[in-house]
Amino acid sequence: MKKYLQVDEWKIVEEGFDAENHEISESIFSLGNGRMGQRANFEETYSGKSLLGNYVAGVYYPDKTRVGWWKNGYPEYFAKVLNAAEWAGIEIKIDDEILDLAKCEVSDFRRELNMQKGYLQRTFQAKTASGKKVKVEATRFCSMADDECGAVKYSLTPLDFSAEISLMPFINGDVKNQDANYDEKFWDETGKGFYTNGSFVEMKTKKTDFVVCTGMEFSVSVDDKPISLNPSQTEREKFTGLTQKTLVKEAQTITLYKYAANLSSLNYPKEELQNKTKETLDRVSRKGFVQMLKEQAEAWAEKWQMNDIRIEGDAEAQQAIRFNIFQLEQTYTGADKRLNIGPKGFTGEKYGGSTYWDTEAYCIPFYLATAGQDVARNLLIYRYDQLQKAIENAEKLGFKNGAALYPMVTMNGEECHNEWEITFEEIHRNGAIAYAVSNYIDYTGDESYLATHGLEVLIGIARFWAQRVNWSEARQKFVMLGVTGPNEYENNINNNWYTNTIAAWCLKYALEAVEIVRKNDPQQLEKILQKVKFDSVKEASNFNKIADEMYFPYDETHQVFMQQDNYLDKEQILVKDLPATDRPINQKWSWDRILRSCFIKQADVLQGIYFFQERYDLETIRRNFDFYEARTVHESSLSPCVHAILAAKLGDQQRAYEFYLRTARLDLDNYNNDTEDGCHITSMAGTWMAVVEGFGGMRVKNNLLSFTPFLPEKWTSFSFHINFRNILLEVKVSSDQVQIRNKSNQGLQVSVYDQEHEVPGKQEITVSKS
Amino acid sequence: MKKYLQVDEWKIVEEGFDAENHEISESIFSLGNGRMGQRANFEETYSGKSLLGNYVAGVYYPDKTRVGWWKNGYPEYFAKVLNAAEWAGIEIKIDDEILDLAKCEVSDFRRELNMQKGYLQRTFQAKTASGKKVKVEATRFCSMADDECGAVKYSLTPLDFSAEISLMPFINGDVKNQDANYDEKFWDETGKGFYTNGSFVEMKTKKTDFVVCTGMEFSVSVDDKPISLNPSQTEREKFTGLTQKTLVKEAQTITLYKYAANLSSLNYPKEELQNKTKETLDRVSRKGFVQMLKEQAEAWAEKWQMNDIRIEGDAEAQQAIRFNIFQLEQTYTGADKRLNIGPKGFTGEKYGGSTYWDTEAYCIPFYLATAGQDVARNLLIYRYDQLQKAIENAEKLGFKNGAALYPMVTMNGEECHNEWEITFEEIHRNGAIAYAVSNYIDYTGDESYLATHGLEVLIGIARFWAQRVNWSEARQKFVMLGVTGPNEYENNINNNWYTNTIAAWCLKYALEAVEIVRKNDPQQLEKILQKVKFDSVKEASNFNKIADEMYFPYDETHQVFMQQDNYLDKEQILVKDLPATDRPINQKWSWDRILRSCFIKQADVLQGIYFFQERYDLETIRRNFDFYEARTVHESSLSPCVHAILAAKLGDQQRAYEFYLRTARLDLDNYNNDTEDGCHITSMAGTWMAVVEGFGGMRVKNNLLSFTPFLPEKWTSFSFHINFRNILLEVKVSSDQVQIRNKSNQGLQVSVYDQEHEVPGKQEITVSKS
Repeated sequence: MKKYLQVDEWKIVEEGFDAENHEISESIFSLGNGRMGQRANFEETYSGKSLLGNYVAGVYYPDKTRVGWWKNGYPEYFAKVLNAAEWAGIEIKIDDEILDLAKCEVSDFRRELNMQKGYLQRTFQAKTASGKKVKVEATRFCSMADDECGAVKYSLTPLDFSAEISLMPFINGDVKNQDANYDEKFWDETGKGFYTNGSFVEMKTKKTDFVVCTGMEFSVSVDDKPISLNPSQTEREKFTGLTQKTLVKEAQTITLYKYAANLSSLNYPKEELQNKTKETLDRVSRKGFVQMLKEQAEAWAEKWQMNDIRIEGDAEAQQAIRFNIFQLEQTYTGADKRLNIGPKGFTGEKYGGSTYWDTEAYCIPFYLATAGQDVARNLLIYRYDQLQKAIENAEKLGFKNGAALYPMVTMNGEECHNEWEITFEEIHRNGAIAYAVSNYIDYTGDESYLATHGLEVLIGIARFWAQRVNWSEARQKFVMLGVTGPNEYENNINNNWYTNTIAAWCLKYALEAVEIVRKNDPQQLEKILQKVKFDSVKEASNFNKIADEMYFPYDETHQVFMQQDNYLDKEQILVKDLPATDRPINQKWSWDRILRSCFIKQADVLQGIYFFQERYDLETIRRNFDFYEARTVHESSLSPCVHAILAAKLGDQQRAYEFYLRTARLDLDNYNNDTEDGCHITSMAGTWMAVVEGFGGMRVKNNLLSFTPFLPEKWTSFSFHINFRNILLEVKVSSDQVQIRNKSNQGLQVSVYDQEHEVPGKQEITVSKS
Repeated sequence: MKKYLQVDEWKIVEEGFDAENHEISESIFSLGNGRMGQRANFEETYSGKSLLGNYVAGVYYPDKTRVGWWKNGYPEYFAKVLNAAEWAGIEIKIDDEILDLAKCEVSDFRRELNMQKGYLQRTFQAKTASGKKVKVEATRFCSMADDECGAVKYSLTPLDFSAEISLMPFINGDVKNQDANYDEKFWDETGKGFYTNGSFVEMKTKKTDFVVCTGMEFSVSVDDKPISLNPSQTEREKFTGLTQKTLVKEAQTITLYKYAANLSSLNYPKEELQNKTKETLDRVSRKGFVQMLKEQAEAWAEKWQMNDIRIEGDAEAQQAIRFNIFQLEQTYTGADKRLNIGPKGFTGEKYGGSTYWDTEAYCIPFYLATAGQDVARNLLIYRYDQLQKAIENAEKLGFKNGAALYPMVTMNGEECHNEWEITFEEIHRNGAIAYAVSNYIDYTGDESYLATHGLEVLIGIARFWAQRVNWSEARQKFVMLGVTGPNEYENNINNNWYTNTIAAWCLKYALEAVEIVRKNDPQQLEKILQKVKFDSVKEASNFNKIADEMYFPYDETHQVFMQQDNYLDKEQILVKDLPATDRPINQKWSWDRILRSCFIKQADVLQGIYFFQERYDLETIRRNFDFYEARTVHESSLSPCVHAILAAKLGDQQRAYEFYLRTARLDLDNYNNDTEDGCHITSMAGTWMAVVEGFGGMRVKNNLLSFTPFLPEKWTSFSFHINFRNILLEVKVSSDQVQIRNKSNQGLQVSVYDQEHEVPGKQEITVSKS
């Protein structure tokens, strides 16, 4: 673990330059606006270790699968988030000497991510190999207001010399993915060219034929006075740059403003891309850097109004939670229902794909509560739009009659992952997708979603479960064989309690949804049932029968649900008795040993208890929590949040706080020594859940928003925002009271510590802790 | 299935040339002598589809593992049988027109593998594109007498023209493996050069630094009269050839004799290889083709004396069993205890590696009965010599104190395979290695092997099992979790009956072996126990306890052993109810569906019953046979033999014969449409077992060789040879009697149909069927 960043409530700050930390910082200081994003690569040349990363949402490459031993049913490709053209770069020469921090003495280095206003700033002084000293300030952002655009302001001051300064802003498409399976490059050039003071590179992805045009325009000032430009052109394959040479005197400051745009064929006809790019560039460069930055701050202010969490008395926690919220908002804005939330967002390539069950299980609650309800709805529609692919995916595995198996990892609805124990067996993902529909409707009350989209998805998923189980003559129950649960440290097990539980729930919920649509819109119901050929007598009765006669492993001795059949055959060792030198076991042990051990990677039975907590009394939850928590190594960053929420529910505030800490600063403090690959975006939503659902005890029960908060010992107070059915609340929890401020006009009934209260519009109520 | 070969009792014959079958024939007509081997590639140029294959036993390349998702404990490499220098090739030009059957009209084509004498002969007429007609006869073999050598006689007769014939015999090392993971070439040239009438290429393998020098010498005759040579040299990277141009008149026959040698650094100091190659070539070329071929026939005659099986009344069966014996003898001779039996022998690259559990489970019985006992002994010593690597392999997975886990696939004792469910879990292989020791001692009576080698191996293996089980509090038994049994259509299962059975047996047998050595050689015992630090009180009692308290799944309803825990939770469908269009399921079904089904790839419980059949009464065997046979799809060629033997034991002669048929002509008739990759060498031993142990009912019980034969309905009689403790018997089974001829001087007591009989030296007894 490396802890080198400064603590600040609204900023991430790195002081002093250490090349060892550079790739970590490139991840942490990443920028994005939902449409495009980039790692915090330096603008100027950097010959040290760096992972170049520029990404355009929805643009991917189907990289040929790499596999040791092929299994029937494996996908042909693994979709890779594409490293796209580099648009922030500026090559800088001082009298022909390239400015490169890997070759300079660097001082007064400071990198700052301003989360409040949404920009990245870097200042430093550098002494070049030839002894010249310069001061630099660079500011950039991906614009939320103009979400195909970014802007850079780069100022350089010669401190002890005068010289000719060459500035070459460029677009560089000659990039590759570090994680390419066969070291191929994924882009072909389709065009490039120059404007008066700008240039562009247009490229097409191999196989998928996405076209992206990346362009830039720039202007230059000396001591804030614009100068006229006569740049010379540089052109290489997939590269265009314009070099402006200017004599700059000692202590003068030369500033380059670079405006960039990424336009993709997802949003424009291919033949118009080049023109549209130019138009977009002209528009934003006319607007200018200062105005763009102002609009950026305004856009972020608006977001923070709805999603900010304030923690008093713990600046590290404050910084961490804002960083998590900031990264989530940079990754997904809900503006485009074709997009989703990659596990690394725009901060790295790792894990490819864009969509995992993380979205439904961990991210939906965040977006539901901190944005307009169309944002979460778009995440649901993403899956609705991929229903046909999910049906085809199931068919590939031998299922039929409209059974849908959503993929483990996907870009366009097709499965990308190729480990049989995951691809074919970690089917619980299908349940989370149905669960998200129910979660959305519970939270928003928007039952109409079922008639327009949800029901078809629910029926497809339920059909999968109905075919995936089989009747066990031996048990006289339906069983589900050969699955991998959320705990991926068990593979190909039988009757995973979580999977059976969510499967049975899906079967019942699909039927419930039929009845809801029947009630709200009987005509539409008939249309849907005809479309999907659902026999609401025979098929429904089969769903009911399976759900009613599903087998759920249970151990009488410990009185706990059993994670899977025969789990107690394993040697029962507790995590506390594991030598520290053996952890993390995924690094220290062979896979064989991990599989045979009783150790749990992430919440599994407890994930199910979390999802369906209203079913279980506190004693049941406590017994299961105590049993499984003691065996869980939390080697997935998605695990601690569930434990935090359940610990809070059980009143174990100390442990709830400990679990919260495990992910809150995961990337900022680089706990897992892997932040250089990118940030753990989806687990950031889990941290948010730990605060709001854990410490805040927020739930929605029968359309009633309720809270049972507690204040972590170390904190003076904390407050969070909740947008519930278009009413914005701020909930502030202090040691002795809970204040709920209604920022909207309409009043709302809420429950606090199981007592109902009215919070009138534009007013605040205070509830004392009993 | 393609059936295009002629039936002949001693030959494999292909008549007429069909390029479609060429790669299949290249496999079937392969040659080998245990030390080197080759596919039946044409001598002359062939531009059609062909898999070039020349192999030198023990020379391999550790090809970097290709893997989708890395698991801790995976090996770094997969050892590939190396495609080595091509030594039989002769480029032939007729007035500058290259002779290439892909570009000729071919007639009277005949390819013949003479199994009796051990050579390959090919005759054809060809009309070239320019219209010239030639007749060719080519004969070649890998010499058993000079096992580093091969020889070719190639005769060409212009039928309707006179012309300058260029013959370029060459050595071509510029070859690659088709199965290379990353398309690399595996050899570097270390030397090449020319002799007066010959040349050589010396190459070194990358990484492993094996050096192989491949050389050739040649002579040419016209109408059987040697001509003097003045060849010109051709030299390229890894290639040397000598071109002799001769004017040949119509109807004259030009004949080239090519003598080749492969010498490897396994057997010579590297610096001497070139000289030794020259010496070897001089020696064999002085000996001459005719003499070499005579010695070849003698060597094979000697083999056939000990191993021939004669089947009267069924020429196809006769041809098939001889083909299987022939290929096994070509693959492994027992001359070198560093070598083993690759699954494709010298007939193809597929599956890399040289050693699988096939050797111990299926091949040892063949070599025990058909060769001197040192041959099987050398196969055991191979594993003894790799004990330290097996211990290291176990350590990699977290085992300790000398526990040994032999690899699934290996060349030098290191694991090569990288599927976790196989590599880490298909650990029953360890049991077969111990079982082979017991099998060897039962058959040979050679208990001394334990003191010199066997005991150390048995203790290492037993230690592995003792650590691999764990005590289940729930069952109050020792359980074995997370294994894959012989039935690879189940992965990561618990308490595989076969694995638990052989593990418990290993623990007991290791202790038995300690007592045997104590009795025979107490001093040596002390040395061994000290060397391996075996505590013959504490550790022995632990072994006993585990074996005694091992859990064996059993189903009371069906009264059968359960292949694994919860097997009866699966939907129970019988193979006979599977639609033909669904088979083979490994091609028609997703891996997911296969895993969840009840279908069994190969004998699993029945494999255990076969190994330990003396433990079970016939009714138990019958119940298990009926239960499992009905669920077994036999999609491994190693499966039917076990079923055949048990069916025979149960008196079900019809089914025994059907199972025998499934493998007997597997390659000759290309049942699985994969013979072009090479022949299924190890399953050939299974066919032999089906005849000798199945139809012949041969067993060894308490040092007594016994037979309970029956005659398959279609046959008039069959006879087989058995070398038992240096006494050679020929057992002939007719419809009404069994004749046993003792070909040795010493008499032997045998049991026939459970009656003991004395077979005096050099005499024959006849036992009538009751």
